[in-house]
Amino acid sequence: MQYSFASRAKTLMSSPLRSLREFAKRDSFISLAEELPAEELFPLSSLAEAASNVLHADRRSLQYGEAGGDGLLREWLSRDWNRRKKLNLSSEQILLTTGTQQALDLFVRVYVDHGDCVLVENPTSPGLLQVLKLQGARIVPVEGDKDGILPDSLELLIKEHRPKLLMAAPNFTNPTGVLWSLERRKEVLRLCTAYQLLIVEDDSLGDLYFPQGGNSPKQLPSLISLEEKQGEHVLYVGSFSKTIAPALRTGWAAGNRQIIEMMTAVKQMADWQSSMLNQRLLHQMLVSKPFNYDDHILMLNREYGTRLKLMVELLKRSAWKDTTYEVPCGGMFLWVRLPAGLNGDALLKRSMQKGVSFLPGSMCSPTDEASECIRLNFTHPGRDELLLGMNLISEAVLEFTARN
Amino acid sequence: MQYSFASRAKTLMSSPLRSLREFAKRDSFISLAEELPAEELFPLSSLAEAASNVLHADRRSLQYGEAGGDGLLREWLSRDWNRRKKLNLSSEQILLTTGTQQALDLFVRVYVDHGDCVLVENPTSPGLLQVLKLQGARIVPVEGDKDGILPDSLELLIKEHRPKLLMAAPNFTNPTGVLWSLERRKEVLRLCTAYQLLIVEDDSLGDLYFPQGGNSPKQLPSLISLEEKQGEHVLYVGSFSKTIAPALRTGWAAGNRQIIEMMTAVKQMADWQSSMLNQRLLHQMLVSKPFNYDDHILMLNREYGTRLKLMVELLKRSAWKDTTYEVPCGGMFLWVRLPAGLNGDALLKRSMQKGVSFLPGSMCSPTDEASECIRLNFTHPGRDELLLGMNLISEAVLEFTARN
Repeated sequence: MQYSFASRAKTLMSSPLRSLREFAKRDSFISLAEELPAEELFPLSSLAEAASNVLHADRRSLQYGEAGGDGLLREWLSRDWNRRKKLNLSSEQILLTTGTQQALDLFVRVYVDHGDCVLVENPTSPGLLQVLKLQGARIVPVEGDKDGILPDSLELLIKEHRPKLLMAAPNFTNPTGVLWSLERRKEVLRLCTAYQLLIVEDDSLGDLYFPQGGNSPKQLPSLISLEEKQGEHVLYVGSFSKTIAPALRTGWAAGNRQIIEMMTAVKQMADWQSSMLNQRLLHQMLVSKPFNYDDHILMLNREYGTRLKLMVELLKRSAWKDTTYEVPCGGMFLWVRLPAGLNGDALLKRSMQKGVSFLPGSMCSPTDEASECIRLNFTHPGRDELLLGMNLISEAVLEFTARN
Repeated sequence: MQYSFASRAKTLMSSPLRSLREFAKRDSFISLAEELPAEELFPLSSLAEAASNVLHADRRSLQYGEAGGDGLLREWLSRDWNRRKKLNLSSEQILLTTGTQQALDLFVRVYVDHGDCVLVENPTSPGLLQVLKLQGARIVPVEGDKDGILPDSLELLIKEHRPKLLMAAPNFTNPTGVLWSLERRKEVLRLCTAYQLLIVEDDSLGDLYFPQGGNSPKQLPSLISLEEKQGEHVLYVGSFSKTIAPALRTGWAAGNRQIIEMMTAVKQMADWQSSMLNQRLLHQMLVSKPFNYDDHILMLNREYGTRLKLMVELLKRSAWKDTTYEVPCGGMFLWVRLPAGLNGDALLKRSMQKGVSFLPGSMCSPTDEASECIRLNFTHPGRDELLLGMNLISEAVLEFTARN
């Protein structure tokens, strides 16, 4: 029979992220395209111990739970954030989701009407763009530089478009890896407060600050922690996917209670609640010794910092001589501008024939601006994979640039 | 600041299901309102063993996975359905979701435009009504009797409203417990095929057939299994929540590949994918001895059948004399029509003061028709809870009826 899909489904037709993942499943294919943490760094034994404890402790960890998420984990988060991030949010201000992506989707479902204007960083994450497109948002990109989005540009756009939202990731923006300066954070927050513009702050990569010269770097305050009344103008989203393990499918949205309640209602409608088992596993692990969350994150950051250094070394080879990039001090990605005239999609096509992928810039922007850029992930591939993968992309680059 | 929610969010404002669950958390409160399986029957030791195996076998079970769901589990389902349900669906025709509710939500997001007409059983499940309302569907109820929806009524409505969908649960319809007869199944399928109307078949309770007189009952074929080309006119949704454990958050949608692909794209946007860990746990358990899925379901059905019998005995007491109900032969609910003039919401209010809840019929219908009915769950409460809970509701009923 002829199926008649909803008109909004048209925005889903092409899902390049999915086809990239399909390729990545093949043996010996190397993916620098995805947002994957390193499997060999998962805290496997701590998780196995937690699983054994949880499954023997309370049968209710296998039952349906609260739509808002497990109370124990929400309280733990609230206390831990207070200690580590200077956040004073009660557990009622936290909704547990299956990750940042679900937090964004749920929020946009309750907050954005078809045609509403939403400001985003440019470039920004493909997952966010998909969510906004499905809901029919009018997406307006804000200019930025190496310190974050530009306040002047932001103010002009606010006046011109009367947007409903600003969606931003001040800690290692996906895909650029930009870390907003403190001044820029304060100025953006001041402007949004003055114009009563709600900010969604995506902090999924916010724990991935790499050590610099052997020292732990000083973390910059999140936008929500800079607010006078925390949660008033900022909704804070993030997850455990990058710091513990993606398969626990646990993230959060935190902020104003009215927003959290509305999101909880749509969460209940969308999937009743996240897995009690996964939330209890996570909580059990976080409160158990010898596992130490801070030490675990430090270990991840040391290793990821090393992988980034290797990637930067490889970019010094001649194939890359006309590319430009800023080396980030954290996160998961290196954002590279290709030599003028070399298109990221064309390079991807050639690279995939060689058995390697990356994310083309075209997927990260509502404009054409990023089509000559590519995003390289350095957290998932091990040393050998990184060497081989970068070699193969270098070959592809040379095949284009040698012609000129 | 003043928040400006999307207009669709208005449909979420009151979520009586949520407040019922909030109450149920209190100590000594008895809930006959929810759709909970019995915790004491969870296959805990098999799950613990599976967890230990999975966590030691493959680190990728903690990684991100495919949007469509774990391939091993999809293949297992495809084979098992073939054996048990006479379904010939390949694993590419299956999308793993976090449960039936998510399957319904994802489908409606890609298939239903604002204003589209959708036919539903009357009464039907509150979760389905919420999903349809959020998407702005025009909900039209179809009349039914103890054998399922009425073909004549269905045909008239098809001609009058040109609906896009029929959503139905032929196995123990939630909330009525109706089991559609074979003739009715065939006739509804014939009509929908003739008029090119897509059916969403919710089979969440479809394994809960209780033994009758010591014998296993003969299961009736699902609508999709009756199709000439399976999946052409029927999308089949269900989950493991009622037969294994809700916290594994694993269900499915299965049918035509084009529909499954579109749902997979929106699934990826909504939460990337379901938990690899949970899917692997489930798969590991299903293929491991000594766990036997068929035996486990048989054990559940024996116990649930016994609980239903107890509830039916209690309904013979004098407080309930002017009520009417059909005793279902499976599922999780008994649907009771109260004495004329007694409203389910009013009775619920009084009952909750006494420490017990049920689901009022008003939540199960887009019309007023069910306001004098209530839905009682008999699978979750143990014997003592069931006795006490039913006593408390009896008291509340008497306080109303004794006046007349």
